[in-house]
Amino acid sequence: MKLGLAQINPTVGDFEGNKNKIIQYARQAAERGAELVLFPEMAVCGYPPADFLDKQDFVQCSEEVVAEIARAVPEIAIIVGFVQRSTESVGKRVRNSAAFLKDGEVKFVQQKMLLPYYDVFDEQRYFEPAARQELLPFDSEKMAVTICEDAWNDGDFWLRPLYNVDPVELLLKAGATMVLNISSSPFHRGKPALRQRMLATVARSHGKVVAMVNQVGGNDGLVFDGNSVVLGPDGSVLGHAQSFVEELLIVDTDGPAIPQPETNADTELVDVYHALVLGTRDYVRKCGFERAIIGLSGGVDSALVAAIAADALGKENVLGVLMPSEYSSSGSVTDALALAKNLGIRVEQIPIAGTFDTFDAALAPLFTGMPRDLTEENLQSRIRGTLLMALSNKLGALVLSTGNKSEMSVGYCTLYGDMVGALAVLGDVWKTDVYKLARYVNRDGERIPESTLSKPPSAELRPGQMDTDSLPPYEVLDPILKAYVEHYQQAQDIAAHTGAPMKLVQAMLKLVERSEYKRQQAAPVLKVTAKSFGPGRRFPIAAKVQV
Amino acid sequence: MKLGLAQINPTVGDFEGNKNKIIQYARQAAERGAELVLFPEMAVCGYPPADFLDKQDFVQCSEEVVAEIARAVPEIAIIVGFVQRSTESVGKRVRNSAAFLKDGEVKFVQQKMLLPYYDVFDEQRYFEPAARQELLPFDSEKMAVTICEDAWNDGDFWLRPLYNVDPVELLLKAGATMVLNISSSPFHRGKPALRQRMLATVARSHGKVVAMVNQVGGNDGLVFDGNSVVLGPDGSVLGHAQSFVEELLIVDTDGPAIPQPETNADTELVDVYHALVLGTRDYVRKCGFERAIIGLSGGVDSALVAAIAADALGKENVLGVLMPSEYSSSGSVTDALALAKNLGIRVEQIPIAGTFDTFDAALAPLFTGMPRDLTEENLQSRIRGTLLMALSNKLGALVLSTGNKSEMSVGYCTLYGDMVGALAVLGDVWKTDVYKLARYVNRDGERIPESTLSKPPSAELRPGQMDTDSLPPYEVLDPILKAYVEHYQQAQDIAAHTGAPMKLVQAMLKLVERSEYKRQQAAPVLKVTAKSFGPGRRFPIAAKVQV
Repeated sequence: MKLGLAQINPTVGDFEGNKNKIIQYARQAAERGAELVLFPEMAVCGYPPADFLDKQDFVQCSEEVVAEIARAVPEIAIIVGFVQRSTESVGKRVRNSAAFLKDGEVKFVQQKMLLPYYDVFDEQRYFEPAARQELLPFDSEKMAVTICEDAWNDGDFWLRPLYNVDPVELLLKAGATMVLNISSSPFHRGKPALRQRMLATVARSHGKVVAMVNQVGGNDGLVFDGNSVVLGPDGSVLGHAQSFVEELLIVDTDGPAIPQPETNADTELVDVYHALVLGTRDYVRKCGFERAIIGLSGGVDSALVAAIAADALGKENVLGVLMPSEYSSSGSVTDALALAKNLGIRVEQIPIAGTFDTFDAALAPLFTGMPRDLTEENLQSRIRGTLLMALSNKLGALVLSTGNKSEMSVGYCTLYGDMVGALAVLGDVWKTDVYKLARYVNRDGERIPESTLSKPPSAELRPGQMDTDSLPPYEVLDPILKAYVEHYQQAQDIAAHTGAPMKLVQAMLKLVERSEYKRQQAAPVLKVTAKSFGPGRRFPIAAKVQV
Repeated sequence: MKLGLAQINPTVGDFEGNKNKIIQYARQAAERGAELVLFPEMAVCGYPPADFLDKQDFVQCSEEVVAEIARAVPEIAIIVGFVQRSTESVGKRVRNSAAFLKDGEVKFVQQKMLLPYYDVFDEQRYFEPAARQELLPFDSEKMAVTICEDAWNDGDFWLRPLYNVDPVELLLKAGATMVLNISSSPFHRGKPALRQRMLATVARSHGKVVAMVNQVGGNDGLVFDGNSVVLGPDGSVLGHAQSFVEELLIVDTDGPAIPQPETNADTELVDVYHALVLGTRDYVRKCGFERAIIGLSGGVDSALVAAIAADALGKENVLGVLMPSEYSSSGSVTDALALAKNLGIRVEQIPIAGTFDTFDAALAPLFTGMPRDLTEENLQSRIRGTLLMALSNKLGALVLSTGNKSEMSVGYCTLYGDMVGALAVLGDVWKTDVYKLARYVNRDGERIPESTLSKPPSAELRPGQMDTDSLPPYEVLDPILKAYVEHYQQAQDIAAHTGAPMKLVQAMLKLVERSEYKRQQAAPVLKVTAKSFGPGRRFPIAAKVQV
């Protein structure tokens, strides 16, 4: 059969916009000869809607829009994700459901059975799970209609299943001839390959076609990568949509397999770059803005963010601001200017020495006899943050913050200073990966100046300051932090497998624990790893923890 | 029998401190003749530990500490809350459990069956629920050992139960003679009375003694009120611990009922005040600090926070900072000075005009031809935030932010300006309640100057500015916001029941939706209502929502 997979980019709560997009894609699918077209999980309301699900009118609107879509496109069968009210007298009030639309009506509804509630997922907070799964007869097929996580509990794939039921297996035992899965499965590095391997295992072990449509686009910190796919009964790929763009994929489920490119560390890194670009673009635009402002220090983090912003929003929509102090090297200024020139973005300079001096004088009576310390370093950073926010206010553009995951882990960043911004573009990118992404940006010629990439990292908040004054080199630091922040390893295991001294490891882990208060006031972070700062990583602040 | 209820204040992750506290209270209970002493849910590790539960060493430590407590206090039977590893081969890896300790050993363990996953609760994220409940024989009794939510699904009390099983009913049907409940049940306004009414319904409808011990103390935004209680088979109170303080309550379960004071709106308000004091004290101290800094505007919000801080930390540990601008009225300065004198706190003045002018001059080349607007108002606020943070850095004291729930709802506050701080003390207090709490502070004489309470509210960021230039009077605004923010009512219902014009209601709700980005970068908010900003209220930023 000819199957359509509509990999669309909905906006949370934009029922009118999402509805029109769904109708338009469904009509195109009909025109291109598809008999059935699939839309992602919660395509009608956008994913994740979070506590909007606690609002009755939100859920009611979702139900109404599904009926409107059915009436608007009677010429093709549609499966689309939406939320609906639960009719049970006990439990949660909402269901995460898939509607089958045909001949102008909602003919069949299947609710989601497995509700993820780990990392960024809170679905048990909102949804009553399906009590049972039913087959959907369509043409000569009996369809297993599943929603995202429903297909993520395969006993052959996972070492330790999270749930004691596998809806896919149940449906196949009941006679399903094809598995359909509508997803809103967010990206992290390596996830597209993992997802496809997992679905191929399901196809192969049951000998059935598996079709999965995934949402694409950014919603706050989450980026959905698309990568919708149809797999043959032997696990081979019958059709595959692109990453990080909307697409209507039409696949003949009886067609031949198509060759698949290999993935490796390099392709994963490219995925991360595209995720950051799409995440930045959608965050800015879905917030109702067009333009972004970035403080340019001459360093690699702000240079990479400027390149991402230029690719996401267009160079004409990016303003770079240099805010040199007496501690800024001349190299930093020339590097930042060269970057702006390479990218073709507007650049402005606002020196901060005068403002710093007036703060210094205002505070002097209270600081008599006290030595200079971190206070004065943070003050410079906060002056810069205040200038960027003034520009944001006056020009109606969002500030993008430039801190990386290494800095945010150990607190090597200033709250209300360099942390200001609407979005922490690199908040989930380790410093060592920042360099790799910068090299990728320069793949066709220098955009980020070579001197930015070759000089040692420095915050330039006191004379001659280097990051290595406070921290080990990032090649040493990042593996320690990654093991702790992403994999929750203990100090002694980290010391053993990284080869770093136990004292150093413990000192770094203590910095992580002491910086939680900064992270809780950080801008939303674009998630590109399996464990990002933000809603998927929840730690208390006023806690006492041994490391 | 003589039952001990140890209403203690543990710190999350402080296994050594919590263990010593539990041992000390258990010994006291034995000395005072109790046969059995109860400690709160997760007393061993503190509640809520959040994602620390994903760390194997954290859970292992919890198991070890329970065994150590058993060995340390063999002279009395103990029931204590802890977390333990799940031994299942499927599902979540941790259990929320109660251990019964006797004769130096762990003799019995009951796991929690009902795991709350709404508002601030995420327990399904971590815990595998109990598959069954078992009775604990003790002396001549058969104890129903339940953990917090296990007792919150009574079919006689709730209109619509959240869970399809009632563990208390199951245990009573199996022959339980007494219900024990160990809780970490956080405070909100009216909750202590609700909790007790609910437990009294359980006692009465089954005709059994019900004993509930509750944690006390602040952990980040949550404040636990204690109010541990023993109820007789007729629902009367046999013993009751105080609110908001640690206490070892010893109750004879065969003893007489004691008279109970009535609760009303006034006593609820006093509870809120005590919650704010305890929450502030514990946040500051559990973060390792002793002192707080507050920007004093001469207005009621900062005056109330200063009074709370003085009560929480001692007047000698509070620094008030006046940062007047050219728009500050002379009344504001004299009011703030009078407040500081009344409270006996140190006060300093740092005028901001000079700093504002240097910012203004630095930005002038970029702002040529553009009119003054919100930018310059925010700039003043951010200069003040930067000064407060400089003092915080240099003096090693935490900044307390002073914004109230009304302002945070509509975004009438400056991100990185007046929103800076380690804790948003009044972030869950409506402006109209701020005035009531201020009156309570003045119950025995003027601490907050009368002129602060009687003058119209103003941000004083431009000449003659009044809050009512941008917003309706708070008597009109607060009911609108409360209906929307706490009860998720729709605009037309709000207009109908408040009598406010639909246009005004919609305008205010739009402000709420547009301000979400500010709230997500706010300091932790002390929760004192059923729906507070913070982790219990999760909304996306980049969304499009009709109001």
